[in-house]
Amino acid sequence: MKRHDFQTWSFAIQQQMELALSGILPPASQLPQRLHEAMRYAVLGGGKRVRPLLVFAGGELVNASAERLQYAAAAVEMIHAYSLVHDDMPCMDDDVLRRGKPTVHVEFDQATALLAGDALQTAAFEVLAAHPLCAEPSDQLKMLKLLATASGAGGMAGGQAIDLASVGQPLSLPELEHMHILKTGALIRAAVLLGSYCGDAMAAEERERLDRFAKLMGLAFQVVDDILDVEADTATLGKTAGKDAAHDKPTYVSLLGLRQAKERAAELEADAMACLAGFGERAERLRELAHFIVHRAF
Amino acid sequence: MKRHDFQTWSFAIQQQMELALSGILPPASQLPQRLHEAMRYAVLGGGKRVRPLLVFAGGELVNASAERLQYAAAAVEMIHAYSLVHDDMPCMDDDVLRRGKPTVHVEFDQATALLAGDALQTAAFEVLAAHPLCAEPSDQLKMLKLLATASGAGGMAGGQAIDLASVGQPLSLPELEHMHILKTGALIRAAVLLGSYCGDAMAAEERERLDRFAKLMGLAFQVVDDILDVEADTATLGKTAGKDAAHDKPTYVSLLGLRQAKERAAELEADAMACLAGFGERAERLRELAHFIVHRAF
Repeated sequence: MKRHDFQTWSFAIQQQMELALSGILPPASQLPQRLHEAMRYAVLGGGKRVRPLLVFAGGELVNASAERLQYAAAAVEMIHAYSLVHDDMPCMDDDVLRRGKPTVHVEFDQATALLAGDALQTAAFEVLAAHPLCAEPSDQLKMLKLLATASGAGGMAGGQAIDLASVGQPLSLPELEHMHILKTGALIRAAVLLGSYCGDAMAAEERERLDRFAKLMGLAFQVVDDILDVEADTATLGKTAGKDAAHDKPTYVSLLGLRQAKERAAELEADAMACLAGFGERAERLRELAHFIVHRAF
Repeated sequence: MKRHDFQTWSFAIQQQMELALSGILPPASQLPQRLHEAMRYAVLGGGKRVRPLLVFAGGELVNASAERLQYAAAAVEMIHAYSLVHDDMPCMDDDVLRRGKPTVHVEFDQATALLAGDALQTAAFEVLAAHPLCAEPSDQLKMLKLLATASGAGGMAGGQAIDLASVGQPLSLPELEHMHILKTGALIRAAVLLGSYCGDAMAAEERERLDRFAKLMGLAFQVVDDILDVEADTATLGKTAGKDAAHDKPTYVSLLGLRQAKERAAELEADAMACLAGFGERAERLRELAHFIVHRAF
């Protein structure tokens, strides 16, 4: 089979995910319509789908089927989407623009945004429980636990809480990294690992190396996000640029300066690539994706 | 072993659940402290624990161990608690009193309430995935799917959305019942069924009868809630009494009148009891609990 280049591969997965998510989400024609519309609005028609790409790239290590991977990827993406809906609400970041469109509470209303986020989180666990994804159901329970741990108080939600508490506070670099490891890194890490559960069995030692790669990618993703928040404009980002500085939030750039933040990103990329050394060809998509995450312009 | 009366049994489970939940929730001493404090505040130290009691009573049908049941019960109770935290927020019901205490967004702040609710939902799925609860892991996946379906857009969150949309709208009795079946009934039903997965295998026909019982209990619970909203005072309820009428929300009482609403509750109780006929002694706790739910004063 001809191997497609990274852009073709990622575009095909983005297309497949749009279809898969559309089929998984409740139809807008069905009651309660406004809730379903808001859920679909939050998830469909946009986004880089970085987390689904990571699920699929992780799946390539173990010859996982596209059908299984799309369910795992949909779960991660719905968790990500729910967190954006809630983070954008007035009592949190109070943002009006996301993926180039009005945020959910602006397009609908706050109550609907709250419920849509809640229901998206539930839908993530539902899709991960409802379809056979592993040869061993006990491995699928591990996937569910992995996603939950990455999303909750010990992961994404906890990172968000630290972020909230840190506005206007001086954070040290280790504190900033800890916050980002939870807030963004945990779900990025989970995406890679979830993919690696959907196919052939993987040796514990291999999964450990993959886990190290995934953690480094999580950090790199956020360092680059902080750089883009300063360097890119709102139109390119599709979300409000410069808002971290405006909110007096500590970032890699505010702590390290722009040049050192870029060096840090390059360093993380190199370390991440080193973790993949033993995987050979199977890890090519992960390498391409790591390169994309660090060198993206949006 | 001496059989305890219903009050002793339910008190013992309430005590056990307080301990279990306290151990499952992240410690308040651990970062991010404010988030953890809010999660603990929302869950601990109050509540009738009706859903945990239903899990344990369902578990008696299949000789389930108390250890397994407490995890399943904690999952349902954390879903219930998260829904209360979010429902009480200003953009939803805007309520200040719950279980006799200030609501979470009043005691903490809205952002913390939002995140605490989010993290409680995640914790529910985490606890259900993290401990062995069934002889067959595939049955545990069914439990996870059951809880998710009961909680999301096709269950509790969907019912809440219909409830929001119905304020000031004339609802027919079937529409009101449909709303309550989703909003309250789905989780009550899930509680009973989850318990029945934690022990010996159960015949499909038996589970169907149990499911019918659980659905009827879900409705009965809400009819009685509507009656109490009119008849009890705020001090007894521990939450604001009379708020449905104040918010111009349709209820069983507003649609049927008080006397007919009480007749409906009695009818549902009788139908529910009939579903348990074939279960004999094993269903005694379920019978007692059904009686308690319909005849409670708070």
